[in-house]
Amino acid sequence: MGEELKLFGVWGSPFSRRIEIALKIKGVEYEYLEEDIFHNKSALLLKYNPVHKKIPVLVHNGKPIAESQVILEYIDETWNDNPILPRDPYKRAMARFWAKFIDEKMVTSPKEKAHEEACELLSTLEGELKGKKFFGGETVGFVDIVASFISHWVGPVQEAVGVDVLTEDKFPMLYKWAEEFKKCPVIKENLPPRDKILAFFKARLEMLTSSYKNRV
Amino acid sequence: MGEELKLFGVWGSPFSRRIEIALKIKGVEYEYLEEDIFHNKSALLLKYNPVHKKIPVLVHNGKPIAESQVILEYIDETWNDNPILPRDPYKRAMARFWAKFIDEKMVTSPKEKAHEEACELLSTLEGELKGKKFFGGETVGFVDIVASFISHWVGPVQEAVGVDVLTEDKFPMLYKWAEEFKKCPVIKENLPPRDKILAFFKARLEMLTSSYKNRV
Repeated sequence: MGEELKLFGVWGSPFSRRIEIALKIKGVEYEYLEEDIFHNKSALLLKYNPVHKKIPVLVHNGKPIAESQVILEYIDETWNDNPILPRDPYKRAMARFWAKFIDEKMVTSPKEKAHEEACELLSTLEGELKGKKFFGGETVGFVDIVASFISHWVGPVQEAVGVDVLTEDKFPMLYKWAEEFKKCPVIKENLPPRDKILAFFKARLEMLTSSYKNRV
Repeated sequence: MGEELKLFGVWGSPFSRRIEIALKIKGVEYEYLEEDIFHNKSALLLKYNPVHKKIPVLVHNGKPIAESQVILEYIDETWNDNPILPRDPYKRAMARFWAKFIDEKMVTSPKEKAHEEACELLSTLEGELKGKKFFGGETVGFVDIVASFISHWVGPVQEAVGVDVLTEDKFPMLYKWAEEFKKCPVIKENLPPRDKILAFFKARLEMLTSSYKNRV
């Protein structure tokens, strides 16, 4: 076919991991390019995402797409096997609603309200899961992929910061979902190692703390 | 058919007007219910959108959908005439990218950076329009509907506040787009009267100013 598919990402980013998970679910081959997002963005990244200058960017036959949820929809519309979004328009709308909710709470919550917002996010999602195995039903779908941050990143972040928000006691359904989600082979093989995430957040926290101490 | 379609909105909200425009483009009949969002939200609104408690909410045969862009996609997938999103997956992705960009800049920009963000939004969109009549090409589409705030609300807001951001000099393409957009019959008939919007923002500004004076 001569198809060319490139993904610009960062190893520890839940946003670029979403894209990798989706491409693996679809069974599509791609080339992965690691970006040094903090110190040295590549000229290609700036060319392909001039508006936000952020990862992830998927480039399909030379045409770039940015914004992880937009990319996920593109992947689902371009490769039809193993659908990520449900077929039914109402169920699709619900999946988009929850995915948007997760991203808004995850990305835009200001620092001082982070704990409160996190609890609200988790308890709303706990209610939404009800008796379902995955947000998508019996198989992993759009909302599960978007929520992978909760299943895999929240744990090490909690450990680094020393708080407990997502525990089996407080959110039994969500806790069980997180375990099930990480057990799926296609997910398990496409998440960064837990200890690397933990080390990353510990280092960042230390940096923040020491710069604070230096100021005091 | 016995279809039941209800829209909960607010007359002056660009978000619920988006939905009205889309339904009119599709030629779908609906019942409109005005919400008193500031003083007295209806029990139905709280029931149908318990997560955000906001308008717009579209209720189709008893099933509620919230979030204006999610509703627009639902409408486009449910009623196929006069498509709002392009068919081609890449063009769809681009439309979603720009619509998301507009909403992020429009909604989440903090007050102190509002002017700067507005200029950035407008100049990026000016570049995106290039020689096109509408963002959607020859006919009004997803991005145009989402951008209707810029064509119809920015003017009276500027007048109330006494600033000029969107002018023909600064953004000739966008200015021309705004004029063309408002000329379309389906748009023109579904936008709130300019003087009502102006009066609303003047009153709000006066309220803010007098409460500030009272504090000083």
